[in-house]
Formats: sequence, structure tokens, C-alpha cells
Amino acid sequence: MEKIISLTKRRGFIYQGSEIYGGLTGTWDYGPYGVALKQNIKNLWWKRFVDGRDDMYGIDASILMNSRVWQSSGHISGFSDPLSDCEDCKKRFRTDVLEKRVCPECGGKLGESRQFNMMFETKIGAMEDSSATVYLRPETAQGMFVNFKNIIDSFHPKIPFGMAQIGKAFRNEITPRDFVFRTREFEQMEIEYFIKESEWKDSFEYWSKEMIGWMSEIGLSKENIHELELPAGERAHYSKRTIDFEFDYPFGRKELYGLVYRADFDLSAHSGGSTVDLSYYDEETKERFIPHVIEPSFGVDRTVLAVLISAYTEDELGGEKRAYLKLKPSLAPVKIAVFPLLKNKPELVEKARKIYTELKKEFGSVVFDDNGNIGKRYRRQDEIGTPFCITVDFETLNNDTVTVRDRDNGEQERVKISELVAFVLETLK
Amino acid sequence: MEKIISLTKRRGFIYQGSEIYGGLTGTWDYGPYGVALKQNIKNLWWKRFVDGRDDMYGIDASILMNSRVWQSSGHISGFSDPLSDCEDCKKRFRTDVLEKRVCPECGGKLGESRQFNMMFETKIGAMEDSSATVYLRPETAQGMFVNFKNIIDSFHPKIPFGMAQIGKAFRNEITPRDFVFRTREFEQMEIEYFIKESEWKDSFEYWSKEMIGWMSEIGLSKENIHELELPAGERAHYSKRTIDFEFDYPFGRKELYGLVYRADFDLSAHSGGSTVDLSYYDEETKERFIPHVIEPSFGVDRTVLAVLISAYTEDELGGEKRAYLKLKPSLAPVKIAVFPLLKNKPELVEKARKIYTELKKEFGSVVFDDNGNIGKRYRRQDEIGTPFCITVDFETLNNDTVTVRDRDNGEQERVKISELVAFVLETLK
Repeated sequence: MEKIISLTKRRGFIYQGSEIYGGLTGTWDYGPYGVALKQNIKNLWWKRFVDGRDDMYGIDASILMNSRVWQSSGHISGFSDPLSDCEDCKKRFRTDVLEKRVCPECGGKLGESRQFNMMFETKIGAMEDSSATVYLRPETAQGMFVNFKNIIDSFHPKIPFGMAQIGKAFRNEITPRDFVFRTREFEQMEIEYFIKESEWKDSFEYWSKEMIGWMSEIGLSKENIHELELPAGERAHYSKRTIDFEFDYPFGRKELYGLVYRADFDLSAHSGGSTVDLSYYDEETKERFIPHVIEPSFGVDRTVLAVLISAYTEDELGGEKRAYLKLKPSLAPVKIAVFPLLKNKPELVEKARKIYTELKKEFGSVVFDDNGNIGKRYRRQDEIGTPFCITVDFETLNNDTVTVRDRDNGEQERVKISELVAFVLETLK
Repeated sequence: MEKIISLTKRRGFIYQGSEIYGGLTGTWDYGPYGVALKQNIKNLWWKRFVDGRDDMYGIDASILMNSRVWQSSGHISGFSDPLSDCEDCKKRFRTDVLEKRVCPECGGKLGESRQFNMMFETKIGAMEDSSATVYLRPETAQGMFVNFKNIIDSFHPKIPFGMAQIGKAFRNEITPRDFVFRTREFEQMEIEYFIKESEWKDSFEYWSKEMIGWMSEIGLSKENIHELELPAGERAHYSKRTIDFEFDYPFGRKELYGLVYRADFDLSAHSGGSTVDLSYYDEETKERFIPHVIEPSFGVDRTVLAVLISAYTEDELGGEKRAYLKLKPSLAPVKIAVFPLLKNKPELVEKARKIYTELKKEFGSVVFDDNGNIGKRYRRQDEIGTPFCITVDFETLNNDTVTVRDRDNGEQERVKISELVAFVLETLK
């Protein structure tokens, strides 16, 4: 884990938030390669679950929502952890995870346990009365439920259908930890899939398979994924079935994704809370009812972390140890690196520049590097997971071919310059 | 403007935030077509200004930042509006925009004017002392300045170079207004371009041209754009030059984008505030200095609004009035609609479904519609700006050609099914 955190900082994937000011606990900033990796993940998800389907409606709701949303959803009353202060050292702890009722720091006596709401609260508008209290959303899900009627009115979808959203959410975690695993600001990719009650078991199975398909698409190996069926006592009261997809992180087996059957809890709660009818009228059966909901939920930052952990590989190549990211080419932040074999040969540099410019137009995420010996340049690209390194050497000047080096086995193949784009496209598929 | 607001709601571009709860002033939710349009704009911007260049480093910093960031930047002391309460009706007003010192609502006497900070404030962590106060960022810019050293350390860029970011920002505006023009939650696309002081005039000119090039790329017509050179009295004290790019909105000529020469104000302020050295060492000249900054700044939501306003067109086609969105094909939320001429002819429907499936694999944003007469279906697509409508008719069954209808002039062309992908790709370029 230390190696991954160090690599991501050194190579510009992920930095501590507000680092020059000593940081802000539970926040992380994505650097150039981190942004690219995250964006590739989000685009792939959107392509698979929204653009690639006929029955999914994408939305992007506001982070700030009317506080009545959180009254109806139950977050104002129920989204809290029990906390207690040590009467001696004054530190604060979650009492539900303590083994004994004494301060784990100094052994002192703990005060009374109180509920601490995990939503960030702020005031909106210039007035200072309490009606203007709003919360940063602690999940993206509610943005979809409150727009349910808008989707019905604009698109008249046939049930079953879903809504999907990618966006930030915020939770005032008491103890953020484990790098980007548990943070106070994070990004979610969520689907709310609306169904008839009678279909819930099949739909749950279907989405479970879809989620497993997604994990395979991004290169997470099956051995590191575990389905945890939550027993009734640990599920939300309205849920008849919940699965956590857990992942083997270096710090333990913990939640990666969740799949929840939410019944009609959300739309019923918002129908009641808003007094706006959120029922669905089925033209075929002439029935009116509140749809039930299956919710596949994916954390973006946890996906980034699981992908990095899965990709991080140490091996030996040509007798030398190396560390590299065995990323799926579609996720790699840089797709191609172009090198002139030698920096001080203008004809090589010029040719390499030309190839670089052409490939960059086509693929965008292409870098040029003429700094240091070729072995070091390969290693630099290995470390960020670049699938293709293209080298312009003296043979290039004779026959317009270049070497294309494979990241995983280090083998080189000569390819005609005119066939490079097709060669790369083929492998990216 | 009313027509555009109505169209965007009816057709699923933009909805009022938290609408079923009576809304939350200054927030808007993007529906399926709005998400697609916004995403197309952001992708195009990123492709042009980040992936398409050698000298730009993308980042994605947290919305929550250490509050010392805002001390150094001057936002805690200076990012405020003067407000005053009416002593009679108790309503609150910005005193700097009032013409007279009486209440504009009831004519009553206004109380003393006080400074009201526009940053949203919240508490982080479980402690309730003041050290845990944080703010939602009121601009994305500072996320780049505080990561300046990270970029230097990870990438060793040669000056001049830039950092770029797309992300949400929040301002507690007293009077949000004009649809998505002035909101409390909004998205920015910003660049901080780091230069030697001696180069600022040239770089400013260069970026001014780049911004104009961008506005042309997204289809804003030159006649609606106006450069406003801000006089010294209206610029920030550290800026030697600032241009507002104004746009002719239906509600008046107002700011769309900004271009500011910020000198070395930001990096100097953060060097001082954090006591971390944010100077740059120039390997070529062996000089160490604090870079100066040119800041091109683009609002995402204002871009969406300006694009919609520019695209909205009313004309007459085949003797009938119509309203349509003359969007650049690259921005259109739906690229292609596929229709069977008649719904009750299974051979037409089947053929159309097949073409739809193929095109959707290639382009993603493709819809199928067999509902209502063909003229109505064309109008529905015109209204959301779909550049291509493909109809499968009886001739299709004989010779494997379809009609492709042009959104702008309504003309139809017969194209071979096997050539459809190439035909669309050509026009999208």
C-alpha cells in the first residue's frame, strides 16, 4: 500500500488535498494521470450503463438540495454515528466500534454517547434563520428520486427503466482512513432501476451479473472480489436483499460496491414528503403503482484504488527488477509514448516529433520523451501503465518502421508508421 | 428566454433543483439531454486545451479545502457583498446595486450596511471548535495554485506551462437569477497559465485568441460576443489587464468568460501563507522566480446557456412553423435518430432496429422512435438538435438504402446502409 501511495504521488496520480497547508483530513486531489484514469473509468461506466442501453436516463443533479429531501429520505433523523468524548483527554470516538467503554487513547472515562449527523451542514441565502439550512448531499441517489417525475414527464419511459448519475457526495466521516478508501469528499456512480415489485428477484440477479461484468471489464480479478450477502439485521429496514461486493485491499477485505433492493421506500417517502404523486401509470396493464427500486452503487475513488491495486505488479525484466501498472489499455492515462532513440540526432527527433503529433491528434493521451537512456524511458512509462512505447531508431530512417514495445512482456515488434493507428486501435479494442 | 426555459424543461435538458419540494433557489438539475450537452462541451474543452496540447496539466482538486487557502487568497477577508436589512419589511438587499438608500420593496428605511461573505461555510470533523471551519470553494482556481509544486515535482515542466481543471464551485449569491446564468452551485473550466513576467502581454494576446477560437468551435457567433476591457478601477488590484467576454443574452449583455493577468499574486500569496517555496527554477537561464499567471476562465453552465440561446432557431419548413436547435453536431445530445417509416410493418421495424443497434454501438447517443407520424418524429428531433434522422422505408427493403434527413434544411438524401457510419463520421468532423 505504501508503494502505491508513493507511486501515485511521485508520478502525479493522487496528491493530498491542500497539501502545502498541511492537508485537510479526508480530502485528496487528482493529478494529471489520476484525472485521466478517473475520467477513463467514468467514461467507460457511462458508455456501458447509459449510452450503451435503451432504458437508462442520465442526470446530473445539484449537490445542494432542499433540506426537506433529507427529511423525507430519513437522513436528518437517521444518518448518524454515536460519539462520545473522553472526559480526560477530550478526544472524541465512535462508541459503536469501541471494544470497551474507556478512552482508547488515555484510558480515561468516556462521557455520554450522542448521535452525530454525518451530513455537512451550511446556510444558504443571506438570511440567518434556520429555514435556510441545507446539506451537502451524502449520496447521489436522492437526486434521482426527486427527478423521477421529470423523467416520466419528459421521456414517458416504459418500466423497467433506470436513472444514472455520476457526481460528488460528502460525508463528515469521524475517521477518514486508508488513502482514498474512506474520505469526506468522494464521487459516486449510481443507478436507480425502477421495476414492478414482482420482478425484483430477477432484476436483482441481473444487476448482480452486470456489476460482475463491469468489474471484469476494468480488470479486477475474480479472486479479489467477494460477495457478502447482508443478513436481515444488517440491512436497512426497507431492504429485502443487499449484497456488498468486497475487495481484497492491502488493508483488508472491505466494501467496494453495493447492490440494494430498496423496495418502494424512496418514491413513497418523497411522494409523502413532497405531496407530489410519484406513481407510475403502466399503459399496458392500465395499473398505477409506486415502482420498486434496485440500486447498483459504485464508488469512483474506490474503483480507482482497486484498479491501481490490481494493476500494481513487480517482476523482473531483462534481469532487472521493475514495478509497473498492468492497467487495461482502455484505462491507461497515457496510451502511447513516442521516443527518438537518441536525443542528439535531429533526424530521429524530428521524425519522432512528427509521429507524436499525428498520434496525439488521434488518441489525445500521447507523450513525447527524449530524456535519458531508452531503458529508463521504458521504465517511466511502465510505472504509469502506458501500454505502447514507440521508438524511432536508425532503421526508421531507412524503411519507415518503428519499434512498438509491449508493456507487459517488454517485447518489441516492428510496425510500419502508416499502420500505427490501426495497430493501436486494434489493441485498445 | 421563456421559450428556451420551457423547451429545456419539457425535453429533459434542465430542471429546477429539488423541484418537487418547491425548488432550492439558485440550483438546477441537468436531465438526460442536458447532461449529454454539458458533457460534450466539457470533453471538447478538455480535448482542445489539455489533451490537444503539450504544455497543459489537468487536475481535479477537492471542493473542500483547508481554510488557510482562503486566508491566503484573500477570500475570507475580501470575497463579500455589502448588505442591508429594511427596518420595516425585514428584507435584505445588496447596497452597492441600489439606486437610493431606501428599501426597493416597501420604501422603508434601510439599516446599516454590513459585509456578507459569499462563501458557503461548514464544519468538518466531529469537533465543534472554530479550527474546523471550512468553505466550499468559490472558484476552482485555488485548487491549481496549491498543487503548483506537486506538478513541478512530478513533471518538471518547462515554463511556460499551464494547469487546467473542470469542477464545481459554490457562491452564496444574494439574488440568483436568469436561469443558469447566476446560480449558487455552478461548474467552471479554468486554466492557470504560468509564464515569465516579461511574456505577459504576448501570452495575454495569445489566450484571448484561443478563447475566441473556442467560442467559434462551439458555434457562438461573433456578433453576439463583445470584449470588454476592464479599466484599472474595476480590475482586481493585482491585475494589470482583464477582459470580460460578454454575450448577448436575452436578458442583456453580460459576462460569459473572463481573461485575467494575475501577475504573481497567487503563488506569492500561497508561498507566504503556507511557507512552502512556490518559486520556479529555470534550467536554461539558471534563474529562480515566482511565475506570473494568465487565467482564462470559462463557466460551464453559462456556456450551455449561450450555446442553447445561439442554437435556438424558429423558421418555416414545408409550410409549417418549427423551432429547432441548430447545434454543432459535435455538441448535439443525440447524434442520430432511427425511424421505421411505419410502426405496424414488422419488416421495417426489424430493419430499423438492426440499424439502430449498429449505430448505437458506434456513436452511443442514438435513439429509436416509432411513435406517431414521421413528420412529428422529425420535429421532436429538430427540437433537441439531432443532426441526422434516418428513416427505413419500403425502398430500404429492396436496395438497402435509407433516407438521411438534414436537420437544418429538411432535405433528404438516400445513403447505403453500409456507408452510414462513414457518412455520419464525415459530417461530425
